[in-house]
Amino acid sequence: MSVAISSRYSGLTPYVPGEQPRDVSRLIKLNTNESPFPPPEAVQKAAYTASQSLNLYNDTEARALSERFASHVGVSPGEVLATNGSDEILYFAYLAFGDDASPMAYPDISYGFYPVYADICRVPGRAIPLREDFTLDYRDYMGIDANVVIANPNAPTGIALPVEDIERIVRSNPNRLVLIDEAYVDFGGVSCVPLIKKYDNLLVTRTFSKSYSLAGARLGFGIACEELMGKLRAVKNSINPYNVNAMTQAAGLAALESKEYYQEMVAEVSAIRDETASRLRALGYRVLPSSTNFLFFGQGPVNGAALMGELRERGVLVRYFGGERTKDFVRMSMGTRKQMDEVVSHIREICEGRRG
Amino acid sequence: MSVAISSRYSGLTPYVPGEQPRDVSRLIKLNTNESPFPPPEAVQKAAYTASQSLNLYNDTEARALSERFASHVGVSPGEVLATNGSDEILYFAYLAFGDDASPMAYPDISYGFYPVYADICRVPGRAIPLREDFTLDYRDYMGIDANVVIANPNAPTGIALPVEDIERIVRSNPNRLVLIDEAYVDFGGVSCVPLIKKYDNLLVTRTFSKSYSLAGARLGFGIACEELMGKLRAVKNSINPYNVNAMTQAAGLAALESKEYYQEMVAEVSAIRDETASRLRALGYRVLPSSTNFLFFGQGPVNGAALMGELRERGVLVRYFGGERTKDFVRMSMGTRKQMDEVVSHIREICEGRRG
Repeated sequence: MSVAISSRYSGLTPYVPGEQPRDVSRLIKLNTNESPFPPPEAVQKAAYTASQSLNLYNDTEARALSERFASHVGVSPGEVLATNGSDEILYFAYLAFGDDASPMAYPDISYGFYPVYADICRVPGRAIPLREDFTLDYRDYMGIDANVVIANPNAPTGIALPVEDIERIVRSNPNRLVLIDEAYVDFGGVSCVPLIKKYDNLLVTRTFSKSYSLAGARLGFGIACEELMGKLRAVKNSINPYNVNAMTQAAGLAALESKEYYQEMVAEVSAIRDETASRLRALGYRVLPSSTNFLFFGQGPVNGAALMGELRERGVLVRYFGGERTKDFVRMSMGTRKQMDEVVSHIREICEGRRG
Repeated sequence: MSVAISSRYSGLTPYVPGEQPRDVSRLIKLNTNESPFPPPEAVQKAAYTASQSLNLYNDTEARALSERFASHVGVSPGEVLATNGSDEILYFAYLAFGDDASPMAYPDISYGFYPVYADICRVPGRAIPLREDFTLDYRDYMGIDANVVIANPNAPTGIALPVEDIERIVRSNPNRLVLIDEAYVDFGGVSCVPLIKKYDNLLVTRTFSKSYSLAGARLGFGIACEELMGKLRAVKNSINPYNVNAMTQAAGLAALESKEYYQEMVAEVSAIRDETASRLRALGYRVLPSSTNFLFFGQGPVNGAALMGELRERGVLVRYFGGERTKDFVRMSMGTRKQMDEVVSHIREICEGRRG
C-alpha cells in the first residue's frame, strides 16, 4: 500500500478546478473566467524570443518584469513579488502568516481555494457568512482574532467592496495579515494597492489570468510593504526560487507594455457583461451586480445544476458550485459578443422548455 | 514592524541559488549546470504556438506531455507527475511524506536544497557523511528510521551510484520513502526508474533543466507507482493545480520529440567533460569522476575560493560552496568546446601565477 502520507494530510481535500477539456474547439467555454481574447502579438513575440535561451535559468527575482509591474501599480520593486499564478502567492501567505494561533478568516462564499490552503497549511480556517444579499459586512471583520482573506471583487458573486470598508478592516487588525485578492479588480473594482504605503499588514494579490489574457502563462503578484514582502520572499526562496519561468516573465513584461490593447479588451468585456446581465434579467433571472468578467445569476426559470446541465448538452460550459446558498445559481464567464448572443439564445430556449 | 511571520519559520534560511547575472553576454557562465546549447527550433515553435492561446488555462494534468514522458521512461501516465521544475516535486515529497516521525536523510554533500526543504516542511533533516573519497556507502542507508533522498549522480560531486546499491536501500526501507533525484542521469548515470514497478516506496525525480536545455522553462517530473503518485497529486492539487504553464508543457513535449538533437548534445557535453577532466588533471588537479554535465575539482595549484575569485575577474563564473569538506573544490559546468578551451587556458594561467 506504498508509503503512508503524513498524518498531517490524512484528510486532505484538494481544490477542484473548473473543467479544462482537452479539445475546446467546439465548445463555448465560460466556466473558468478566462478572457475570450488572446494576448496581443507582442506577448507571443516575447515568448518566442525567450524560448531561444531556455537553456539558461530564468531570473529568480524576475527583475525586469517586477520593476515594470511595480511602476504600473505605483509602488517600488521591493514591494512586489512575482509568483506562479496568484495561487502561489496565496499559498505563501497562508504558510508564512498562518498557524494554530493565527487562523484565516474568509467569506463563506468566495474563492474555493481559501479553505483548501487552510487545510494544506494546517491553519484553522473560519468561514464568515456574507449577508443574505451576498454583500460583505466589513463589521464582521473588525478587530477579529484572525488573519483575513477577502477577494475584491468577490468570486463567484462578482460583488465589489468599497475601499473604505477594506481600510476599516485593515486598520482594525494591525497585528493580523489582511490579504485582498484583486484577481478581478480591472473589470470595475477599485484597487486598495495605495493603502500598502500606509499599512504594513496589508497584502494585495493580482493575477494576469483574467484582464491580461494570460491564464495559461501562470503569472501573479503580491504587493505589500517591503518588510512584509521580505518574509514572503524568504518562504518563496525556501520552496521554489525559480518559480516564474522565463517565457512567462517575458510575456508578462510585454503585456504590461501593451496597455491600449488591454484597455480596449477590458472595456469590451465589461460592456458585454452589462448587456448580458440586462438580457438575463429580462429572462427573469436574478443577476448579482458584477464588477468582474463573469456573472453570477439564478433564481429564475431554470436554475443551478439543471441550467448548467442543459447548457453543457448544447456545448456551453458554465460553473456550478452547489452548496446551500449558491445551488440556485451558476457562474458564467463572459465570452465574445457573438458567443454571448448564442449563449443567451440557448438560455432563452432552455427557459422556454424547447431544445435548439 | 509588519505582521510577524509564523513562529514555525522564525529561523528560516532560504536556498541560495547560483548567481544569475542580468547580462550574461560577456560572461562564460558555468555556475548553475545549464546546457551551453539552446533547445532545438521545434521547442521554440511549440512555445510560440502555445503563446497564441494563453488566454485559456493550461491543462492541470499536463496530459499530452505526461503521456509522452511516461512512454519515454517506460511507465504509464498515472505513474508520472509534471511539476514546476524538479524542485517542486521534491517539495511535494517532503511535505507529503515527512513529519516529526518521518525525518529525511540525505548525504552531507549533495544538493543544497535538501536541508532547506526539511526546514520549510518542518521535517527533521539528517545529513549522512559521504566516504572520504566522496562516494556513498549504501550500508549507511540500510533499514534506517528515516525517508531517504539521494541525488544520483550526486551533485556537486558528480559521482554516480550503481543501481544495485539503490535497490538495496529501497528494499531495506519498505515503509519509508526513498527519493532518487536523477537530475543528471542522462549524462552517464543508470536510471532506477524500472524499479518503480517492483517497489512502491520509490520516487524518482527528473528535470528538463540539464539534458533538455530547458532550465528557463521550469519542468520536472516525479515517477512512482500510481498509489504513491496519487498522494503527491493530492498535495499538488491542494497547492497549485495549474503548476506547469502552457508554454512549458508545449516546450517539453516538443523536446521529447527531438530525441536526436538531444542525444547529440548530451554526447557532445559528455565528451567535452571527459576532455576537460583530463586537462585539469594534467594541471595537477584532483577531478572527481563525473557522470554529469559538470566537474568537481580542486586540491591542485590554486583552489576553492581563490580559483573561483580569479576566474570571476576573467569573466568566468563557477560555483564555490565552502564548507569543511568542499572548500578546496569548485564545481564547473561544461560549456561549449570553445568556451572550455578558453576556461582551461585561464586556469592554466592562474595556476602559473600569470594574468591573461
